[in-house]
Amino acid sequence: MPIQEILAKNLDTKKFIEEQAKAINDAVGQNLAINALSGGVDSSAVTMIGHKALGDRLKTYFINNGLMREGEPESVVSLFRDMGVHVQLIDAREEFFKALKGIKDPEEKREAITQTFYKKVFGRLVRESGARHLLQGTILTDVDETVAGIKRQHNVFEQLGINPEEAFGYRILEPLVQLRKDGVRKVAEALGLPESVYNRMPFPGPALSARVIGEATPERIALVRKATAITEEVLASTEAFQYMAILHEDRVTGMRDGKRDFGLQIEIRCWDSLDARRAVPTRLEWEILEHLSLRILDEVPNVVSVTYNIASKPPSTMEAV
Amino acid sequence: MPIQEILAKNLDTKKFIEEQAKAINDAVGQNLAINALSGGVDSSAVTMIGHKALGDRLKTYFINNGLMREGEPESVVSLFRDMGVHVQLIDAREEFFKALKGIKDPEEKREAITQTFYKKVFGRLVRESGARHLLQGTILTDVDETVAGIKRQHNVFEQLGINPEEAFGYRILEPLVQLRKDGVRKVAEALGLPESVYNRMPFPGPALSARVIGEATPERIALVRKATAITEEVLASTEAFQYMAILHEDRVTGMRDGKRDFGLQIEIRCWDSLDARRAVPTRLEWEILEHLSLRILDEVPNVVSVTYNIASKPPSTMEAV
Repeated sequence: MPIQEILAKNLDTKKFIEEQAKAINDAVGQNLAINALSGGVDSSAVTMIGHKALGDRLKTYFINNGLMREGEPESVVSLFRDMGVHVQLIDAREEFFKALKGIKDPEEKREAITQTFYKKVFGRLVRESGARHLLQGTILTDVDETVAGIKRQHNVFEQLGINPEEAFGYRILEPLVQLRKDGVRKVAEALGLPESVYNRMPFPGPALSARVIGEATPERIALVRKATAITEEVLASTEAFQYMAILHEDRVTGMRDGKRDFGLQIEIRCWDSLDARRAVPTRLEWEILEHLSLRILDEVPNVVSVTYNIASKPPSTMEAV
Repeated sequence: MPIQEILAKNLDTKKFIEEQAKAINDAVGQNLAINALSGGVDSSAVTMIGHKALGDRLKTYFINNGLMREGEPESVVSLFRDMGVHVQLIDAREEFFKALKGIKDPEEKREAITQTFYKKVFGRLVRESGARHLLQGTILTDVDETVAGIKRQHNVFEQLGINPEEAFGYRILEPLVQLRKDGVRKVAEALGLPESVYNRMPFPGPALSARVIGEATPERIALVRKATAITEEVLASTEAFQYMAILHEDRVTGMRDGKRDFGLQIEIRCWDSLDARRAVPTRLEWEILEHLSLRILDEVPNVVSVTYNIASKPPSTMEAV
C-alpha cells in the first residue's frame, strides 16, 4: 500500500498530532516503547508525540557518539527536561572512536558509525529494554530514498541485530512517514518545541566525523568541534541556509614564533540555497570573513590556514566528506 | 671582506652595468663562461650583462624541469632571442620527475629538485662545456640568508659535483651581489628587459611542485599548471602582490553527472603585501571570485571544489608547501 502524503499546506497540525498519538497508544497498549533522540527536528517531534501518547512508557535515549557539537548532548537533554520529558543520556564515545580508528574513507566512516549505532549501542538498548515497539522519525523523503514498506522495516531489524524470527515480536512505528521536512517543522512548532529545533540547520548523520577529512580521532574531532562552535557563533546572524567548518588532512606551511611549522587548515563553507539541491557560496562581508579567520587561527590549536569555499553545488556538494 | 651594498636610490644603472660587464670581461678573457637562466629577474639581468660582456662566449641554458608554468620555457627563450641572445633549452623533465617520484614531504621535494638541478643537469652542462667561469644571479639578500664569502661559493661547487681540488680551476662571478631586489629591478629595466621580467611576480624556486600538496607527478603538475594559467589570467588586473593556485592532496566529495564523485580541490591565494614579510588576503570582488571558481571547475579535470585563502601571514605563509 503506497503511503498517503500529507502536504504541509493541507496539514492540520493539532489534528495530526492527536491522531498519531492515538495510533501509538492503540499499538503499544500497556507495553513499553523505545526511541533514539538525536536532537534533529524529526526525532524531536517523534519524541514529543510519543510522550504525549505513552508518557513514561516511552523510553527515550540520547546516544552521545563523541561526534556531537560543543555542549549538544547536555543541551538536548536539558531542553526536553524543561518540556517535562525524561531523556536518558548514553555515553558511547569510546565505542564509536574504537570503531572509527584507522578509517579514512568517507563511506567506511559512515558505515562504521551506522553499524556501531544500530548493531551495538542502540541495538543493545532495544534488546535489553523489553520494549517491542520502536518509534522512528522516518519521513517520506527517507522512504523515497530507500526501498519502501516491509523491506525497509526489515532492514532496520537486521541493522539492530534482531533476527527475522524474533522480529515478528517487534513493531516499528513511524508517525511522520506521511510528511516531508516542511510538514515536520510545522508539527514540531505546534508541539511547543523551540525555533532552535524546528528551524534547525541541517546537520549530517555522521555528525562531526563528516567535517574531518581523513581519520576521525578524538583529537581531530575536538579541533573541528572548536572551529564549528566559532563558525556557528560568527555566522549565526547571516541568513545562510547552512554553514560549517571542515578540518583538512593536508598539512600546509605556516609560521609560529618565527619558525616554519607544518600546520592544519580549516575550510569554511557557507551556503545560500532553497532546497539543498543547488547551492551557492554566501557572499559574506570581508569583515566577517577576516574576523572568523582570525578567531579560528587564535583559538584552534595548530591551525595556520583558513579558507572559504567559492565553488557552487553542483559540481561541489554541501558537505566535503 | 664584507660586500659593499649599493642602495637602489644611489644606483647609477648605466655605470653599474658597464662596470660589471667590464669586470666579467676582465675575468673571463678569451675563455668560455656559462650560466643558467630561470626567467626570473635576477638570472635575466645576469644573462643580459654577461652577453654584453662576452657575446657568444657566454653559454646560457634554460633548463625545463617540467615544473614551469604554461608556455614558460618557450616564452623565455623567445624573449631573449628577440633581444639578440641565444638561450639553449634543455629538456630535463624526465630526470626531475624521476627524482620527485614518491616524495610527499615539502622539504624532500625541494631537496630533490636542488640536487637534480645542480648535481645532475646543470652540473653535467658545466663540466661538459669547458667553461671555467660560472655566472650567478646571487643578490645581497641571498648572502644574508646563507654563510657569506668563500664558504658559500664552495657550497656551489660541491652542489655541482665539482670536487674542491678541481674547483681551483673554476670561478663564480656574481655581478648582482651588491644589490637587493629593488636595485636588480632598476638594472633589469635599464638593460631593456620588458616589464613582465623586471616587475615579475615572485615565483618559488621549486616552481609548480611548490603548488602541489603531496607528490608532484606529471599529471598533478599538469592540473595545477592549468589552474595557475587561469588564476594568473583572471587576477592579472588586480594590484595584488602575488597570486597562486594550489592543488590539494585531500579528496572532497562532489557531484558529476548526478553521481557522487571524490574529486580534487584547488585553493586560490591572492596576497596584498609590501615586502612579503607580512601579508593579508586581497579583498577580491565576489564577481571575480565566482568567475575564477567557475572557470577552474569547468576547465581543470576532476576538480569539484575551489577555496579562497582568508588567513593572513603570519601565522600563514605565502606559499602552502
